[in-house]
Amino acid sequence: MTRKKWVLAIWAVLLVAFAAVVVAGCGGKPASTTASAVNTGLAPDEMDLEKFAKLYPHHYDSFMKNAEMSSVGTKYGGNLEKDSHLEKYPYLKNLFGGYAFSLEYNEDRGHVYTMTDLATVKRVTSLPNGKKQVGSCLTCKSAEVPGMIAKMGETYYTTPVEEHLKNATHGMTCSNCHDPQTMKLRVVQPAFIDAMKRRGEDVTKATQQQLRDYVCAQCHVEYYFNPAKKGEVTFPWDKGFTPAAIETYYDEVAAKENNFKADWTQPATGAPLLKAQHPEFETFQGSIHQINGVSCADCHMPYVKQGGQKITSHWWTSPLKTMDQSCLVCHREPVDKLRDYVIQKQDLTFEMLNKAGASTEVAGKSINKAMQAGASDADLAEARKLLRSAQWYWDFVAAENSMGFHNTPLTMNTLAKSIDLAQKSTMAAAKAGNFHDIPEATPYSEFINERLNARGWPKDKGETKKPTNINWK
Amino acid sequence: MTRKKWVLAIWAVLLVAFAAVVVAGCGGKPASTTASAVNTGLAPDEMDLEKFAKLYPHHYDSFMKNAEMSSVGTKYGGNLEKDSHLEKYPYLKNLFGGYAFSLEYNEDRGHVYTMTDLATVKRVTSLPNGKKQVGSCLTCKSAEVPGMIAKMGETYYTTPVEEHLKNATHGMTCSNCHDPQTMKLRVVQPAFIDAMKRRGEDVTKATQQQLRDYVCAQCHVEYYFNPAKKGEVTFPWDKGFTPAAIETYYDEVAAKENNFKADWTQPATGAPLLKAQHPEFETFQGSIHQINGVSCADCHMPYVKQGGQKITSHWWTSPLKTMDQSCLVCHREPVDKLRDYVIQKQDLTFEMLNKAGASTEVAGKSINKAMQAGASDADLAEARKLLRSAQWYWDFVAAENSMGFHNTPLTMNTLAKSIDLAQKSTMAAAKAGNFHDIPEATPYSEFINERLNARGWPKDKGETKKPTNINWK
Repeated sequence: MTRKKWVLAIWAVLLVAFAAVVVAGCGGKPASTTASAVNTGLAPDEMDLEKFAKLYPHHYDSFMKNAEMSSVGTKYGGNLEKDSHLEKYPYLKNLFGGYAFSLEYNEDRGHVYTMTDLATVKRVTSLPNGKKQVGSCLTCKSAEVPGMIAKMGETYYTTPVEEHLKNATHGMTCSNCHDPQTMKLRVVQPAFIDAMKRRGEDVTKATQQQLRDYVCAQCHVEYYFNPAKKGEVTFPWDKGFTPAAIETYYDEVAAKENNFKADWTQPATGAPLLKAQHPEFETFQGSIHQINGVSCADCHMPYVKQGGQKITSHWWTSPLKTMDQSCLVCHREPVDKLRDYVIQKQDLTFEMLNKAGASTEVAGKSINKAMQAGASDADLAEARKLLRSAQWYWDFVAAENSMGFHNTPLTMNTLAKSIDLAQKSTMAAAKAGNFHDIPEATPYSEFINERLNARGWPKDKGETKKPTNINWK
Repeated sequence: MTRKKWVLAIWAVLLVAFAAVVVAGCGGKPASTTASAVNTGLAPDEMDLEKFAKLYPHHYDSFMKNAEMSSVGTKYGGNLEKDSHLEKYPYLKNLFGGYAFSLEYNEDRGHVYTMTDLATVKRVTSLPNGKKQVGSCLTCKSAEVPGMIAKMGETYYTTPVEEHLKNATHGMTCSNCHDPQTMKLRVVQPAFIDAMKRRGEDVTKATQQQLRDYVCAQCHVEYYFNPAKKGEVTFPWDKGFTPAAIETYYDEVAAKENNFKADWTQPATGAPLLKAQHPEFETFQGSIHQINGVSCADCHMPYVKQGGQKITSHWWTSPLKTMDQSCLVCHREPVDKLRDYVIQKQDLTFEMLNKAGASTEVAGKSINKAMQAGASDADLAEARKLLRSAQWYWDFVAAENSMGFHNTPLTMNTLAKSIDLAQKSTMAAAKAGNFHDIPEATPYSEFINERLNARGWPKDKGETKKPTNINWK
């Protein structure tokens, strides 16, 4: 070619590339390293992290970043130190009264700690009266579980988790999400597969982009231990993903078919309560990112450079730490502006989350006061029903790991409902107990007050203004 | 040039144009037809719509679209028929008890109706005991007002509005926002200019993009009639734009300096209450669109074709009717998806708005019940204070014309606060009156129930699925 032809060709390529970026836009499906199958030579049931590490050393290095515990780059969560929720949110001790979560409940840590934390948490080690935590608790912690369930059947769920821990040695490994032979994405949790089936969806037919949600949705969801099936882990999605739809499921479907009334009955109130688990997948449904086709992995597993190779990050943490890679693929605004807006939404959520938590605590204290004043179960039926509902809506947000970011409108609506229901419960209890001096909530901790008074991005905490870049090993 | 050079040149121009679009992105400042001054030959105080119409016939045609009253293309608002708010939201009659808004309060209509509606609304024509509505009410309705204020001074505010209406003939015209001689954007409302000055901002130095907010912010704001200045229209922005900051202003600054305690005292409760006016500008502050440099005009006055000419639309209505022009300049998602997300947020807001309104009504009824039971002013001080606050937070959203869209996180947080405060007020009143049977809210209207039950875009209302294109005259 002549020089002019070369120049022309380069311009043309540039233009086409540019146009491609613009047209693909947000929600486009980036080609994944795992979209096309490879042949690893590994056994079909391989789960040993070290075996995978030899084939995928850069992905392994990325995965091992999950051992890092730092909130630098975030304000709310994002692999904090092993902080105690019970100390940060003092009203929790009453809300979880009589339930294992009142024993120990910590800030979430990286995926590499699943087995350590399960083996040492008081919810497993220190149940009162020699009670043993059921095997179901292991379900999301170890790559060995699908194999154990296939082998043991129902016995898997009923065997004490401490027994399982003697045998299971692998935590979460590559095989939780990847077929060891082809490295293609896959789902392995029976509870997820079954729940989707009941919703009419065959997950073996899922697209690559759907799988980039589904591998996470195997665990980052609401679930319960189904008493009609020996405690089998079950996802309550038959009526939908919203907090209201799941509450209806528990009130109607689960209670009717499986005799599941509640996760526990709170001794101080006699109310049968539900404990929400991390409903990230459910909360995300209908959010602005979700309706635009963005998957969990698009933000939480951005492309990064590792050892000179472009890989999908396997460091699962707050995307506020990787905004350049996570956000700027679609957003054109400066990182500072985007982050400030995220924090603003989280601040507004945090304020109402604590108001809902404290209101729910007051409702519980009011019911207790009425009980002490001699109110009957019939007198308290309404107050208890409202409390169950209020605590459910509060916990749906409290247990969810995004402080409202995953779906702010739904989250704020949920918290407003919780406040409304909690205070109606309080009024019903006051009537039942014939008193007017409403008990007070446990005062907010210094942690809460500090956050409430320091709106926006913390500037005086040694936290860097710009999100920290990933320092790969 | 040779053919190849031509081709090369064309490619280069295309690429640069493309890049310019991408780089400018959202929040860029589109060149405005009014950004550079022209010479109209009109008098500096011209305000006659017909005179402007001769020079700008297409803009005039666009402006006259404001006579249209149809909600097609929206679900919430957007120049509806002259519906009665009092009938749609039955609890309003109690919330506005003893205040002019309980006489007549309708869905907002197009800007061309300002004078007609002011002259005929019962809030002006039918005040009890022969009371006359003050002149301040005309302030945002007529292009003549800045001239009247300059000429009459304080007397403008104290003269009954019905007197003003005998003399003023012009409604809102071009001169409210444009210098008649140059057509450059300008602000003319003294209240806006003064409020910004107190915030340290000289609006004569505003940029074109700022003016594309400020011309609207002359009226689409919260204000009060300052008793220390004969009822001068005053914007309460000294402490900020949030509902909390404005409440603090009223509680501290206005009360201290100007003896402004409240807009009115509600007879049924004895509570000194605040009436929020359409705080669109305040609500918009800190929203995702605002922090990205988007102005009111960017969405509400998109570029359109009119008579073969590209003009800025002067049909002020919901951008849901002009999504192609309003949204797709920045957004790349399909209009259907964007609209569904807007409606979802509005549905969630609507649900909590009514819960907050009903809760506030219950608080008022509870105070009234306590009064009838003989509770003293001292007994009721706390309940009244909480009611004032609850009603303020509810009304800040109720009076704002976007059903939460302008700033959903702030709006939902505001409604959650209202619910919390209203129920605390109810409990305080129940204690003061020593009763436990909490009064019930007026049942929701069919309108509210229908909206609550029909989440998402209404499909069975004869409303077109795709937003209606603008049919220019």
